[in-house]
Amino acid sequence: MATKMENLTTLFDPRSVAVVGASRNPGKLGYHVMKSLTEGGFKGELFPINPKETDLFGSLAYPSVLEVPGEVDLAIVVLPARVVPEIFGQCAAKGVRGIVLIAAGFKEIEDELGGQLQDEIAALANEAGIPVIGPNTFGMVNVQADLNASFTPEFSAVKKGGISLVSQSGGMAHMLAFMAMRENVGFSKIIGLGNRCNIGFAELLEYLADDASTQVIAMYMEGTDDPRRLMEVAKEARGKKPIVVYKVGKSDVSDKASKYHTGSLAGQYEIYQGAFKQAGVLTVDTLHELLDTAKGLSSCQFPKGNRVAVLSGQAGPGMAACDVCEEKGLILTEFSKDTQERIDRALPPLALRTNPVDMGPAWYSPEAIREVADSALGDEHVDGVVVCIAYASANIGAVDGLAEVLKSWGQKKPVVCCLSAPGEIWEEGIRSLEEAGVPNYATPERAARALGNLWRYQTLAGRGLDRGQH
Amino acid sequence: MATKMENLTTLFDPRSVAVVGASRNPGKLGYHVMKSLTEGGFKGELFPINPKETDLFGSLAYPSVLEVPGEVDLAIVVLPARVVPEIFGQCAAKGVRGIVLIAAGFKEIEDELGGQLQDEIAALANEAGIPVIGPNTFGMVNVQADLNASFTPEFSAVKKGGISLVSQSGGMAHMLAFMAMRENVGFSKIIGLGNRCNIGFAELLEYLADDASTQVIAMYMEGTDDPRRLMEVAKEARGKKPIVVYKVGKSDVSDKASKYHTGSLAGQYEIYQGAFKQAGVLTVDTLHELLDTAKGLSSCQFPKGNRVAVLSGQAGPGMAACDVCEEKGLILTEFSKDTQERIDRALPPLALRTNPVDMGPAWYSPEAIREVADSALGDEHVDGVVVCIAYASANIGAVDGLAEVLKSWGQKKPVVCCLSAPGEIWEEGIRSLEEAGVPNYATPERAARALGNLWRYQTLAGRGLDRGQH
Repeated sequence: MATKMENLTTLFDPRSVAVVGASRNPGKLGYHVMKSLTEGGFKGELFPINPKETDLFGSLAYPSVLEVPGEVDLAIVVLPARVVPEIFGQCAAKGVRGIVLIAAGFKEIEDELGGQLQDEIAALANEAGIPVIGPNTFGMVNVQADLNASFTPEFSAVKKGGISLVSQSGGMAHMLAFMAMRENVGFSKIIGLGNRCNIGFAELLEYLADDASTQVIAMYMEGTDDPRRLMEVAKEARGKKPIVVYKVGKSDVSDKASKYHTGSLAGQYEIYQGAFKQAGVLTVDTLHELLDTAKGLSSCQFPKGNRVAVLSGQAGPGMAACDVCEEKGLILTEFSKDTQERIDRALPPLALRTNPVDMGPAWYSPEAIREVADSALGDEHVDGVVVCIAYASANIGAVDGLAEVLKSWGQKKPVVCCLSAPGEIWEEGIRSLEEAGVPNYATPERAARALGNLWRYQTLAGRGLDRGQH
Repeated sequence: MATKMENLTTLFDPRSVAVVGASRNPGKLGYHVMKSLTEGGFKGELFPINPKETDLFGSLAYPSVLEVPGEVDLAIVVLPARVVPEIFGQCAAKGVRGIVLIAAGFKEIEDELGGQLQDEIAALANEAGIPVIGPNTFGMVNVQADLNASFTPEFSAVKKGGISLVSQSGGMAHMLAFMAMRENVGFSKIIGLGNRCNIGFAELLEYLADDASTQVIAMYMEGTDDPRRLMEVAKEARGKKPIVVYKVGKSDVSDKASKYHTGSLAGQYEIYQGAFKQAGVLTVDTLHELLDTAKGLSSCQFPKGNRVAVLSGQAGPGMAACDVCEEKGLILTEFSKDTQERIDRALPPLALRTNPVDMGPAWYSPEAIREVADSALGDEHVDGVVVCIAYASANIGAVDGLAEVLKSWGQKKPVVCCLSAPGEIWEEGIRSLEEAGVPNYATPERAARALGNLWRYQTLAGRGLDRGQH
């Protein structure tokens, strides 16, 4: 019999999925799960389980998993809590390899029967070696495998990429995914932790650390029962794969709320922060920063030092970026003599030719702009670069004009951008840069903060890691 | 003869505009200014000035302002610096009431001739009582009057609203405007300060404080030569009209850059912060926060105290909001006995029924959700409310279902939201809420921060101001 951790791999990459509680009634979550799977384009076998139906969403329906003719790798359970122990028994008998338990009514409710029920199903699952995501979760999405095993069909619109999210809140996972859709950020897996029947942060971290399609692990956390084990697993992943965590509970009230919500100890925000630091885990303060940092970590080269250059199309955005760079421990370095001479030759005699460089006055000369960018980006004193340009008629060609230089240097050192234009004007160019590993951010501060976090990750990971070519 | 300050009102509301340097060549800024004015729908008379043309963009062209048959209220000057003194002389002779000087090559260049030239034109303008926006500016936009007097036609897409922006950086003004377009935030005026020939922060603040269509003054600042005068004007506006400032220059390098860029003393970031506080001016740290805060100030009621409630569709976003609330000095208050009883009756026995309230478990009962929201919003112990809901299939009707309750209480106390859904799903409902004075933000943290800043403004303004009905 395979172990729980071995089965976890199958849970995320199943050849066949049974939906226990599949429904044709849009008022039921079993309907939305079926919609997610079918519209999401899952390519394996799909078995709706509902004793009152013969077929659902174009697939033959079965009265129970035991009646399914073939093997069932993953069972998604969307039924009331009280019948879940029986279903788990059937899943164990059928040899199901993993369960996503969307049903609620376990440890999270006030009634202590909920806790007892959860203990009961955990014992059943552990005995059978079945890993369980949930209960009380929206489910999970393996974006890379077109497997939307959640009650939210819209998750299927998330782009494929290298970030895997483990979220202790369904709401935060949804918000992050919606932002990712708007900002075109790619994900590998989106996992709703729920109330951790037998799979928690530590197990998922262990799994994702070895998952080839996951480049960066992002976590939203309220609290965990076993922080020690989590930190141990994190330490093992240290330097191997970046982990970035957004932990709430800074305030007394959210700390208390977290305890009630997840049934786990939150508390001790500062202790968590210290432990994360020791384990080489990057921490962030907002949902934007979680997404931005994960995006940077999954696309940029890692900086070899903290000396940066800020190139801007207008002075203001460059200054805002500088403020954040310094706050994050980055140094606006002095250019080498050669670089400074090249920039001085390329730009008219305006003051902002040192670092930060205001390229504004040269926008009528694309050659000069390219020369400035190429010399600053190529300077051996520069470990990373922030490029901030607001669209105006004079620089409409800026993104296309700089694309090759940014892409080329972006293979050697981190280059982050805030290229801001109305409507669709620069969309195509920005997408092309992002595909080449040069991420774009909505504001100069967010771009600078992402670069700062790349550097902070390097210091936490305690190394000068070279990512190699993309 | 009208004074410079009297003429400033005409500058922003001209009956007629001359574009000195109008062009049909898209490589010239004079082309883009003409495009801005015509596509922006300016309803007054338009006089392109170009000795080589007979007509431009459908209007008769004239060789100089002196040849224009009627009066010229505003002249937009888009010519090389060296000819600007002559143009100013013509404008004075013609009785022009205001000038937007887009031309560059003055105080901002290294060559001291630039400074001399600026002194020369300032003397000419002051003698004639002509206020000048610029030089070295993108121009200005009176959104409310459909007057796009800038070289960026895209500014015309900004929605009409109550925020007026004074920006010392064209880049930052563009970025803010592009964000405002995406997030549907309305503006009254967008002003590019440039190098302040004879109109600086203080003069614009004085003008905007009395401008009926400006509800909130937002400023992006690098530095000013006369901070004392600015603070005096700000103090006069105190309690009358909110002012929110994003001042860069926190770091040494941006401080130095600012000095070069604007030719003015930046420096002394902390001194500025202290002076702003004394003058009742709200300060913020990022471009997002500037827009979010101005949006809140221009649409919400002001809180009468710092006791808030957080209502969320899922626990996580609520906790993130709580963290920011506490950081900003807001108190997650205890509900009154009556409120708590109503909430306890409406929600199933789940833990998060105190403040913050997790409405998640009740999404299948719209009546219960409305009852929870209505009791919390109406609680006399509650001075403001943050509502955070991530879309899921179970709560797709959330925005429509809560709209009346939120709109109704939003007339009495500040209600800010983070309603997050993919694509267009909740767009219409969110717009309708925003039009009723209930602003929406992209993340729970941004919503909570905006509410925190409303309270911070109240303490700075030293009053319990009642905005009255919208």
